[in-house]
Amino acid sequence: MSVRLTSQRYGKSSVRLTKVTRTADRHELMELAIDVALEGDFSESYLMGDNRRVVATDTMKNTVYALAADHGLTDPESFCLALARHFVDRNEHVTAAAIEAAQTPWIRIAGADGRPHRHSFVGGGSERRICGVRFARGADGEPATKVEAGIKGLPLLKTTDSAFRGFPRDEFTTLPETDDRIFATLLDARWTYAAGTIAVGAGGASGSEFDANETYERIRQTMIDVFADHKSLAVQQTLYAMGEAALGACAAITRVELAMPNQHRIPLNMVPLGKKNVNEIFVTTSEPYGLITATLERG
Amino acid sequence: MSVRLTSQRYGKSSVRLTKVTRTADRHELMELAIDVALEGDFSESYLMGDNRRVVATDTMKNTVYALAADHGLTDPESFCLALARHFVDRNEHVTAAAIEAAQTPWIRIAGADGRPHRHSFVGGGSERRICGVRFARGADGEPATKVEAGIKGLPLLKTTDSAFRGFPRDEFTTLPETDDRIFATLLDARWTYAAGTIAVGAGGASGSEFDANETYERIRQTMIDVFADHKSLAVQQTLYAMGEAALGACAAITRVELAMPNQHRIPLNMVPLGKKNVNEIFVTTSEPYGLITATLERG
Amino acid sequence: MSVRLTSQRYGKSSVRLTKVTRTADRHELMELAIDVALEGDFSESYLMGDNRRVVATDTMKNTVYALAADHGLTDPESFCLALARHFVDRNEHVTAAAIEAAQTPWIRIAGADGRPHRHSFVGGGSERRICGVRFARGADGEPATKVEAGIKGLPLLKTTDSAFRGFPRDEFTTLPETDDRIFATLLDARWTYAAGTIAVGAGGASGSEFDANETYERIRQTMIDVFADHKSLAVQQTLYAMGEAALGACAAITRVELAMPNQHRIPLNMVPLGKKNVNEIFVTTSEPYGLITATLERG
Amino acid sequence: MSVRLTSQRYGKSSVRLTKVTRTADRHELMELAIDVALEGDFSESYLMGDNRRVVATDTMKNTVYALAADHGLTDPESFCLALARHFVDRNEHVTAAAIEAAQTPWIRIAGADGRPHRHSFVGGGSERRICGVRFARGADGEPATKVEAGIKGLPLLKTTDSAFRGFPRDEFTTLPETDDRIFATLLDARWTYAAGTIAVGAGGASGSEFDANETYERIRQTMIDVFADHKSLAVQQTLYAMGEAALGACAAITRVELAMPNQHRIPLNMVPLGKKNVNEIFVTTSEPYGLITATLERG
Repeated sequence: MSVRLTSQRYGKSSVRLTKVTRTADRHELMELAIDVALEGDFSESYLMGDNRRVVATDTMKNTVYALAADHGLTDPESFCLALARHFVDRNEHVTAAAIEAAQTPWIRIAGADGRPHRHSFVGGGSERRICGVRFARGADGEPATKVEAGIKGLPLLKTTDSAFRGFPRDEFTTLPETDDRIFATLLDARWTYAAGTIAVGAGGASGSEFDANETYERIRQTMIDVFADHKSLAVQQTLYAMGEAALGACAAITRVELAMPNQHRIPLNMVPLGKKNVNEIFVTTSEPYGLITATLERG
Repeated sequence: MSVRLTSQRYGKSSVRLTKVTRTADRHELMELAIDVALEGDFSESYLMGDNRRVVATDTMKNTVYALAADHGLTDPESFCLALARHFVDRNEHVTAAAIEAAQTPWIRIAGADGRPHRHSFVGGGSERRICGVRFARGADGEPATKVEAGIKGLPLLKTTDSAFRGFPRDEFTTLPETDDRIFATLLDARWTYAAGTIAVGAGGASGSEFDANETYERIRQTMIDVFADHKSLAVQQTLYAMGEAALGACAAITRVELAMPNQHRIPLNMVPLGKKNVNEIFVTTSEPYGLITATLERG
Repeated sequence: MSVRLTSQRYGKSSVRLTKVTRTADRHELMELAIDVALEGDFSESYLMGDNRRVVATDTMKNTVYALAADHGLTDPESFCLALARHFVDRNEHVTAAAIEAAQTPWIRIAGADGRPHRHSFVGGGSERRICGVRFARGADGEPATKVEAGIKGLPLLKTTDSAFRGFPRDEFTTLPETDDRIFATLLDARWTYAAGTIAVGAGGASGSEFDANETYERIRQTMIDVFADHKSLAVQQTLYAMGEAALGACAAITRVELAMPNQHRIPLNMVPLGKKNVNEIFVTTSEPYGLITATLERG
Repeated sequence: MSVRLTSQRYGKSSVRLTKVTRTADRHELMELAIDVALEGDFSESYLMGDNRRVVATDTMKNTVYALAADHGLTDPESFCLALARHFVDRNEHVTAAAIEAAQTPWIRIAGADGRPHRHSFVGGGSERRICGVRFARGADGEPATKVEAGIKGLPLLKTTDSAFRGFPRDEFTTLPETDDRIFATLLDARWTYAAGTIAVGAGGASGSEFDANETYERIRQTMIDVFADHKSLAVQQTLYAMGEAALGACAAITRVELAMPNQHRIPLNMVPLGKKNVNEIFVTTSEPYGLITATLERG
C-alpha cells in the first residue's frame, strides 16, 4: 500500500494572553485567545519521528507572550500579522503561518465622576471580535498576506418587521406563512481587508492611516443598524443587506462572509389551554435552528 | 431492609419563554428560562407508580405559558410568585413550590434618531438576572413566601488596586506576596427581600410602590461601582464591601449571598525568554480558580 | 446599618491532577478534578483585608499535589479524607474542610494478546465518579467526618417498559397517557457511607477490609441493572427502585440522593406528513426536561 | 458600489432524531443529530426577499423525520445519502445538498442472563460517530456523490512510550526534551469512501456487500490499537501511523484526515514543595493545547 501525506499542519491553540498597558491616567486591557498553525514540510516527523523541523508548540506559546511584550497590542490584527511573519521568517521550511485571535470584550466602567474609569471593566458579553491572518511564503519568495477580521456570536433580536412568505410547499411542508415573526440570531461575520491595508509594525498598524479598531466598531455598528431597521422578507435578505452595508462602510474590505442562525421563537398554539395567543407568547428554542450563510464580494 | 423516603421533589426545568408586549411606540421583550419544582407527599408514585398526585411536568410547562399570557411580565419576581402560588393553591398535597427564573439580557438598540429603537435589541452578555421564589404552605395554613433575586455570572476585572499580602506560609506555600495584581471575577449575588416586599398581582408588583426592576438595576450598579473603586487587600474584603453596599442600597433586602471566583491572570516569568515583565504580560487561566463566598445579613 | 457575616467559606476549585503509578507490568492512572473549601473565622480578611488567617488558595492547590505524591491514590475517597484532615489539623481557626473530587473515567484498552494493555486507555464517557468529604472540628475537639460518593451524569435509556398514566388533569393538561414511551435520563446519585467506613491512610483505605472501588462499581452496576429491567410506571418509581437497590447493595451506605432528568423523546405526529408513526420516530429534546429527585435513608 | 453574491448556502442544523426499530427479541436504537444544507441559486431571496426557491428549513426538518420513517436506518451513511438525494432530486435549482450526521453512542446493557439486554442502553461517552454526504448535480446532469465517515472526540491516553526530542531551539524555547511523557488526545478522524462504495437504498446500504457499521468499528479499533502500541517519537508520527493503519484496514477508503490535540499533562516541579516528582504527578490542562493534523491519501 502506498500512502501520500497531502496536508501537514500543526500548532498551538488557545494560548490565552492578557496585556495591560498603563499610562498616567488610563490602563488599557487586551485579552486574546490565540491559535498558531504552521504549514510546511514536516514529513520527517510524521514518517520517522525526526523532529529537526518541528518548532515545538510550547515554543509557539512562548513566542506569543514574548512578542506581546514588544508589541503595542492596540489592535489584534497587527499583532497577528507580526506573529505570522515571525514564524515564516524564522523557519525556512515553513511555507505559511496562520494565526487566529479572539478578543474578549471588556467595557470600561463609568467612574464616579461620570468619566470612563481608569482601570475597571465589566464583561462585554459572549460576542468575540476575531481576526485571522495568513502569511504565506510565495513560490517566488514574495510573501502573500491575508488579513481577515470579524465578529463571532453577536446576539440580535427584533420583535417584528420580519416575514417569511411565498416559499415552496410539498407534502412535507407544514410551516404557515407569516407576516410578523420574531427574528433572533447570533451573527458571525468575517471580512477580508485588501492587500496592504494593515502593515506590520511594533506598535500596531504603524505608519498607516488605517485604524483597525475604529473600522471594526464602524462595521459592527453598521450591521446592527441594518438589522434593526430592515423590513425583512427572509433571513437571507437581511443577511445580504447587512453584508452589503458592511462593504459600503469600509472601502478597504473586499469580501464578507456571513452566517446567521435562525434561532426560532415558536408562537405557541394556546387553544388547547383555553387561551388565545395574540403573537405574544413564544417557545424559545435552541435546536434545531436554521442556518443561513452567504459570501459577498465587491466588484 | 427498611427504607424511608426522606425527601421528594420533582418538576420541570428549563422552560424557555419569550413574551412580547406591544404598545403603540414600543415593544417590550422578556425572555426567561424557568424551573418549577414541587414538594409534598408523592410517595404513592415513588413506591407504587400510582400517579394520582403527580402533576405532570408537561402540565407545569403548559402552566408557565398559560400564566405568562395573563400576567404583565414586567418583572420576573411577581411572575414567579404567581406561578408558585398557582401550584400550591391548586394542589392540596403540594407543601411547597419553588420557582427559579433566569432572564436573558437584551439591550435596546439606539435607533437612527438616537432614541431607543422601537423593537430591536442586541444581546446583553452571558450575565443573567435571576430570581427564586419559594411559596410554602404553612402548618397553620398560612403560607410562607420567600422571594430572592440576584445576578449570575457578571464578569468584572480591574487591572490594579488589588493586593494580597500577609497570608500564612508553610512548606507548601510558593505564592509571592503582591501589592499589584489583576483582579478578575464572575460575580454571583443573590439577595432576599423582606416578607411582603413583593405582592402577587396579575400585572406585576401590583398595588405596590416597590419597583423590582429599578431595585435590581440599582443593586447591580452599586456592586459594580464598589468593585471598580475598592482598594482591595483580599478578594474577601472586596466581596464583603460589595455585599455591604448592596444591603445599603436597598432597605428591603435582608440578606445577600455572594460568590466570587478568583480568575487568575498569572504574571509570566519572562526571564527565560530574555525579557523583563513589568507587570504587563499575564497568562489568562480558567482553572484552577479561587472561590470566595460569604453571606451577609442585616442587623 | 449593622451587618453580620453569617457564612464564610472559600477555597480552590478545579485543581486537576493526574497521577501515574507504575508497577512492573502495569501502569495505574488516576485523574481527578478537586475542589477544596475551608470554613472558619476569616472575618479579619473580609472586614479589614488582614490575611493572617487566610490560607492562600494557591497553597491549597500545591497541597493537593504534594499530598498526592505521598498517597497511594488507589481510590478518591481516602485521598479526599487525607486532604480534608490536613487542612483542619494544620489550621486551628479552620472549623471544617470540604473536599469534592470528580474522577475522569479511563478504560484500559485490550492489548494485542487480549489481556488488558499495560499503559493505554480509552475515554470512558462524560460520566464522572464523584466523592465528597467533609471533616469538621467538633465543639468538643472530636472531629466529625462525612464521606459521600456517587456518580454524576450517567446516561441511561430504555426503549420500552416505561408508562405514565393516571396523573391529574386540569385545564392546562394536554399530555396523553401512555403505556409505552422511551425513558432516557442522566443519572446523578450520591450516597453517604456510615461513620468509620473509610479510614485515613497513606495508601488508601488502609487497614480496612472496605474496598471503595469495588463498592462503587457494585452500586453503579446495581442501579444500571434495576433501570434496565424495571417495569416503570413513573420515573419516580424507577428512581426509588434504583435507590432502594443501592442501599441493598452495600450495608455501609446509610442514605442515597438521586436525581434523574426526564430527557424527553417526543413521538412525532406524522399525520400532517402523510405517514403513520408506529412508536418509531421521536424528536430528541434537551429542554425543557423533567427533573425527578428523592432521598432515601435506611431504617 | 457593485456587490456579487459568491456563495449561497442555507439549511437546518441540529435536527435531532431518535428511531427505534423493534423486532421480536431486540430493539434497535439510532440517535442522530443531522445538519442539512443546500446550495444553488437562491439569489432572488437574498436580493429581493422572493422566496419561491427557498425550501423552508422547517420543511427540511420534517423531511428528515419523514424519510427516517421509511428508511431502515441501520447505518447513518445510507440515510444521509437518501436525504441528500431527495433534496437535489426534488429541487431543480439546488445544485448540491450536504448532510452531516453525528450519532450518539449507546451501548447495550448486559442482561440478567448475561446476554445483551433486549431494550436497555447505557451512554457510550462524548465520542461521536459522524458522517458527511455531499450529493452534487453535475454540469452534465450526472450526480457526483461524496460519502465521508469518521469519529469525533475519542479520548485516548497512554502513560508512556511517548517521547519528544530533537526539535529546534531558539531564544523562546524552554521545553526540555523528554523520553517519557504522557500522551493524551481527543481523536478526530474523517475518511472518504471511494465512489460507489455505498449505494442509496431504502433499507440501508442495499444490494451491497459493504457493511458501513462493521467498517466503522474496524477502522476505529485499528486506530485505537495503533495508538496503544506505538512507540511515539512525536504526536505527528503516531497520527501518521494511525492514518496509515486506517487506510490499510479498509480498501474502500481513499483518504483520511486526522486531527489530534496534544492535551498536555505537565510534570510538576515539586522541588519547591520539598518533594521529588518521579514522573508520577502531573498538572492536567485543557488549554493551551497542541493541535496536530494531517491528511493521508492512498496513492
